[in-house]
Amino acid sequence: MDTTKKTIIVFSGDLDKVMAAFIIANGAAAMGDDVTMFFTFWGLNTLRKAEKVQIKTKKSFLQAMFGWMMPRGADKLGISKMNFGGMGAPMMKMVMKQQNVTSLPELIQTAKDQGIKMIACTMSMDVMGIREEELMDGLEYAGVATYLGEADEANVNLFI
Amino acid sequence: MDTTKKTIIVFSGDLDKVMAAFIIANGAAAMGDDVTMFFTFWGLNTLRKAEKVQIKTKKSFLQAMFGWMMPRGADKLGISKMNFGGMGAPMMKMVMKQQNVTSLPELIQTAKDQGIKMIACTMSMDVMGIREEELMDGLEYAGVATYLGEADEANVNLFI
Amino acid sequence: MDTTKKTIIVFSGDLDKVMAAFIIANGAAAMGDDVTMFFTFWGLNTLRKAEKVQIKTKKSFLQAMFGWMMPRGADKLGISKMNFGGMGAPMMKMVMKQQNVTSLPELIQTAKDQGIKMIACTMSMDVMGIREEELMDGLEYAGVATYLGEADEANVNLFI
Repeated sequence: MDTTKKTIIVFSGDLDKVMAAFIIANGAAAMGDDVTMFFTFWGLNTLRKAEKVQIKTKKSFLQAMFGWMMPRGADKLGISKMNFGGMGAPMMKMVMKQQNVTSLPELIQTAKDQGIKMIACTMSMDVMGIREEELMDGLEYAGVATYLGEADEANVNLFI
Repeated sequence: MDTTKKTIIVFSGDLDKVMAAFIIANGAAAMGDDVTMFFTFWGLNTLRKAEKVQIKTKKSFLQAMFGWMMPRGADKLGISKMNFGGMGAPMMKMVMKQQNVTSLPELIQTAKDQGIKMIACTMSMDVMGIREEELMDGLEYAGVATYLGEADEANVNLFI
Repeated sequence: MDTTKKTIIVFSGDLDKVMAAFIIANGAAAMGDDVTMFFTFWGLNTLRKAEKVQIKTKKSFLQAMFGWMMPRGADKLGISKMNFGGMGAPMMKMVMKQQNVTSLPELIQTAKDQGIKMIACTMSMDVMGIREEELMDGLEYAGVATYLGEADEANVNLFI
């Protein structure tokens, strides 16, 4: 088979699931595949900048509240099990470091370096009040139709 | 490529995940694809009628208990994160309304109008004691073999 | 279509999700498909032996802690919703038994009998400090590249 394509919808904002998504994506890209990651709902938190950003258009009260409560970027994500009020994630990161597992910020950088297409779901951004200027650089912005177009060209499509 | 087919297993009963499933399904149907949604486990709650229904065969005690505790239909689903004892879902719905995002009941109606095939998993219905008369009209009833037959004809298969 | 192939990533360690994975896998195998299940992160707990095992290389403190806290095998898994501090799983098992639904340990045995390839993710094993001697017999051990090779040959690939 020639170069093939993979798509991953990153719906989850849990550290463990997002890491799994990037490990699969980077593995496929390393094997020569085209990879598209589509970040939607909680998955968008992965792409947020760590620092507070001046935004151009005011958020609604509820959007601002979501913004305050949701984790600001890859370093702040919790884990889906045994989170222990936030202690689970640092513990998991510590043991990953001991085992020389690449951290999530490094996995994201590798994804960029390998030319993985990272798309932020614009409809979810509207709902959660997340603005382009709050997200990392190098993303594309699109909706479900774009995702479906990519998936139609791919031979593996995952929802994580 | 001609018309292609998509299948989505809706295992989750969380408002946010179920909405994602219907947004993808409706998007694909709007682009001319055949779409099959297979509702199993908690996903079945999406299809429950809002009102209590007279059923023909008695439920076991445990089934009745599951029935009482599980959400009765699309309007009652909670969200997978920041549910805040049930407050998260109304907040999410409010912000979606502000952003003119179609509500879940409307998404379901659109799915029906577009001819999306919605299958309720009969094995899960047996386990949870959910009867046909408790679910919305227009569904098909089948098991895993039917799902697999549909998936074999599809080019995108998601588990949500 | 000839015999086709299916892959399932079992990321979740929740009884309900793991059962769904095995029901789909066994269904496909019964229809003549090749099936590969790739167990990673919490999904690995499904494969743990119920008894404490003498291991060859010492675990780090954090790994040992994960080991103590994570469920030891298919019989110990909780459910993803309405777990009620562990009571949900026995209740779910009881009602499944009433409905003559095959139990998870039986589903796993059927999967083995049908020749389903079960792969334990070595990277996750390293992170969680899970050793081969702690897992059931008859598994293969590999990483993401092996998964991707299998997925490239399959027509249905799910992430559960």
